[in-house]
Amino acid sequence: MKQSQLFTKIKKEIPSGEVAKNAQLLLQAGFIHKEMAGVYSFLPLGLRVIEKIKHVIRKELNNAGCQEMSMTSLQSKDIWKKTGRWSDDVVDNCFKTSLKNGTELGLAFSHEEPVAQIMANYVHSYKDLPFSAYQFQTKFRNELRAKSGIMRGREFLMKDLYSFHVDKKAHDEFYEKMKGVYMEIFRKLGLGGNTYLTMSSGVPFSKYSFEFQTISEAGEDVILFDKEKKVAINKDDFSDEIFVDFGLNKDDYVFEEAKSIEIGDIYSLGTKYSEAIDLTYADAEGKSHPVFMGSYGIGVPRVMGTVVEVYNDEDGIIWPEEVAPFAVHLISLCKGDAEKGVVEKVYKQLISHNIDVLYDDRSNVSAGQKFAESDKIGIPHRVIMSPKTIANNTFEYKKRSEKDAKYMSFDALLRIISKTY
Amino acid sequence: MKQSQLFTKIKKEIPSGEVAKNAQLLLQAGFIHKEMAGVYSFLPLGLRVIEKIKHVIRKELNNAGCQEMSMTSLQSKDIWKKTGRWSDDVVDNCFKTSLKNGTELGLAFSHEEPVAQIMANYVHSYKDLPFSAYQFQTKFRNELRAKSGIMRGREFLMKDLYSFHVDKKAHDEFYEKMKGVYMEIFRKLGLGGNTYLTMSSGVPFSKYSFEFQTISEAGEDVILFDKEKKVAINKDDFSDEIFVDFGLNKDDYVFEEAKSIEIGDIYSLGTKYSEAIDLTYADAEGKSHPVFMGSYGIGVPRVMGTVVEVYNDEDGIIWPEEVAPFAVHLISLCKGDAEKGVVEKVYKQLISHNIDVLYDDRSNVSAGQKFAESDKIGIPHRVIMSPKTIANNTFEYKKRSEKDAKYMSFDALLRIISKTY
Repeated sequence: MKQSQLFTKIKKEIPSGEVAKNAQLLLQAGFIHKEMAGVYSFLPLGLRVIEKIKHVIRKELNNAGCQEMSMTSLQSKDIWKKTGRWSDDVVDNCFKTSLKNGTELGLAFSHEEPVAQIMANYVHSYKDLPFSAYQFQTKFRNELRAKSGIMRGREFLMKDLYSFHVDKKAHDEFYEKMKGVYMEIFRKLGLGGNTYLTMSSGVPFSKYSFEFQTISEAGEDVILFDKEKKVAINKDDFSDEIFVDFGLNKDDYVFEEAKSIEIGDIYSLGTKYSEAIDLTYADAEGKSHPVFMGSYGIGVPRVMGTVVEVYNDEDGIIWPEEVAPFAVHLISLCKGDAEKGVVEKVYKQLISHNIDVLYDDRSNVSAGQKFAESDKIGIPHRVIMSPKTIANNTFEYKKRSEKDAKYMSFDALLRIISKTY
Repeated sequence: MKQSQLFTKIKKEIPSGEVAKNAQLLLQAGFIHKEMAGVYSFLPLGLRVIEKIKHVIRKELNNAGCQEMSMTSLQSKDIWKKTGRWSDDVVDNCFKTSLKNGTELGLAFSHEEPVAQIMANYVHSYKDLPFSAYQFQTKFRNELRAKSGIMRGREFLMKDLYSFHVDKKAHDEFYEKMKGVYMEIFRKLGLGGNTYLTMSSGVPFSKYSFEFQTISEAGEDVILFDKEKKVAINKDDFSDEIFVDFGLNKDDYVFEEAKSIEIGDIYSLGTKYSEAIDLTYADAEGKSHPVFMGSYGIGVPRVMGTVVEVYNDEDGIIWPEEVAPFAVHLISLCKGDAEKGVVEKVYKQLISHNIDVLYDDRSNVSAGQKFAESDKIGIPHRVIMSPKTIANNTFEYKKRSEKDAKYMSFDALLRIISKTY
């Protein structure tokens, strides 16, 4: 895409009214727009990152045999009443609205009830199990405060996956598999090195669950983690009991403490929702049982915000290649028509190699401003073309994460950039 | 995908409680689930169709230089008050909700206000214009009744595009271009032959607008159309005046009358929203003007519903290739392990040619049931493999839209199926 045509522009100053670094950097570089506290629109650059994250998640889940679907935001009061979650005393952050005839409706803060209701149409026998289904869908959470930028939204896109099994044993097998799938997703999203599968308590229907915690100063959680053995425990749940329950010897580990961001969680839901919604199956003898369910979440903007919190420097964002809005920032410092034509040709060549390019073709902007803005946007590979590089038949190449530029041929350039494709 | 793993199943009977044919057929074949009147979830088969439609629209709009973004569902009362649209007397089908602190919010029934607000951050000079931006985003409409299946939802996915120009002349140029882009989109979606660019009045801020009307008995509109000359007028607006205003001679046309479905509309918004929201630009002399806006909509589920209404027979849906959930329905009638292995190999071969295949691998279902269910799902190409076809080293091929099967080699099969890719 040509930068002259991008409607967003980079702001010189960090916009006021944001305390979270992720929102500051993303607003400044034109990735997002703040509608109100905790409610952000995603502008072209920001949406590209969201789509990259979705692509990584979708691919891994499809490979794991999960089926994609899409549920609704408007939900009936009736199904929430069945599970006792309509009352504000039980769920205190739910948005509600109503139909013209006065019928009250909920806005989806979660989708356990509707997914169980849907599956009750299709699950009858043990032969219909197991399976799993997921969606990328908006969640609405009526938070009292929303000060963490895109990491804790009142409206945000969530990937929520639900699994359905005959019993706990079958569920546990899938649950174990998902631990690996999740770690692979976070690795592909560029967060592998900093993310720990973390033991935690905290869900009413099972003694323990697991969270995926990424170490970051911006985190609202604190974990104790063994860097080498990759074992981590949420500080709130750190106790001798948890070691006993998981059959671990506390003395085998060297724990460090750090702030962290919960970027995913996987829960056993047991039969709480299936019993309430009447999602049952008949076993081989025809006896009826409630379906055993699991739930597996990833907040998509939270992942994006976490990446920004983890990967930035004083000049701006440094996107990992996997989630960058573009792979290459091609910056032209040429003014003459002939030279501009050469850059244009390179732009098209890169595209013909299926490389996503943001092409800074603006001719009324200084080199200094172009570089400063490029740093703020944070595209991983930068290619600079000037009258000098063209005369020398070479390309100036710089990684956003490195200080020094290199000079190389087009083929060498292509080798570096294509590595990640 | 293997059909044995698809969690949805085809129902023998048309579910009760639906009067719209599109919803009846889609519910029966497991494409959608009804949450409440006018609110439908999209199950794996249905979501695949939605994604195909989005892909076609996105490609054409990106080619036309439009930029994709994503705005929010929660909207502030303040911006709606600026344009006078907060009041129920002005917009009577808006859902409203509120924050914990009592602040009232609207649920997006449309996005003119927020898009103008966002652009006010980025448009300052005439040099920042023109451009256009679109999104696929949920719209909420608090309809009194919702009886048209997925064609008139209380919650539905809309593609809404907005364009921004210095004046009416610049806007009109883009508007004319979009007429062609839209017709190309509908052609690619399989609705080209039945869809007419239709003259209409009906927006407060410009005397005329254009709708895209698809002829169908399920339509809520009526158009008068000249089949040969491709001129159509909404019956509500048919008058001598409209011919004069468009410089047409009424006697040149032979009009037929038919019911039709409005699958898209393109409006000139003029400066209504830009004036209210203060979206202005400075001209070359530094003088300030309001930006001239246009808006261009396509309801994604409405397109899907229209396709179903137009393409079906007594046995089920007949998807056009462009929007079908899968390209090929591979049906195995084999029971023995060796023969199943042969089918499995063909399945993998088709996938390796980048062909989307639904593979009916179920062994506990009769051939008759498989064919009946395949008709209901409506995948355009059907390939049947039986012990007999395998012994004869041939493939039985049938188009969903044709009665008779043919027998052919794998290469011949591939040529037919790949034509549409």
